[in-house]
Amino acid sequence: MYVIAVYDCGEKRVAKMLKLMRRYLIWIQNSVFEGELSGVQLKKLKIEAAEIMNPSEDSLIIFTSRQERWLDKEVLGREKNKTDNFL
Amino acid sequence: MYVIAVYDCGEKRVAKMLKLMRRYLIWIQNSVFEGELSGVQLKKLKIEAAEIMNPSEDSLIIFTSRQERWLDKEVLGREKNKTDNFL
Repeated sequence: MYVIAVYDCGEKRVAKMLKLMRRYLIWIQNSVFEGELSGVQLKKLKIEAAEIMNPSEDSLIIFTSRQERWLDKEVLGREKNKTDNFL
Repeated sequence: MYVIAVYDCGEKRVAKMLKLMRRYLIWIQNSVFEGELSGVQLKKLKIEAAEIMNPSEDSLIIFTSRQERWLDKEVLGREKNKTDNFL
């Protein structure tokens, strides 16, 4: 399935979260990631994220769509993923 | 159509962008918004966003899905929208 994940983490956990996300998904903007994952992969991602997160402070929103073609994406302004040497 | 919008703006433009987004969509996390918009509304939103943005620094990613039911959302951790008195 197609996944968009957006996290908001306390500073201490940002680096860990970023690292986790990059193992499963493609970074597209700040704390926004997208990619194709199987059900099992998504489950693993959520379990690993829960281990990093402080549930009273941090938040992770995951949108899923069964098919990528059901979702259109448009980028206005700078396409960060193309220009930044992030990490 | 169903819209998810995520922006990344220079500090000087964040407040304006936030205000614009809130006129069209529902705030769900940091710089993430969602909601149901008509094609005309989405067009207006993009035009107004382009007026605020510095295209070489800022970025706005817009995901659209023709039907909300094609998209599932799950929130792990804190559901900010329910607890914060934002703005």
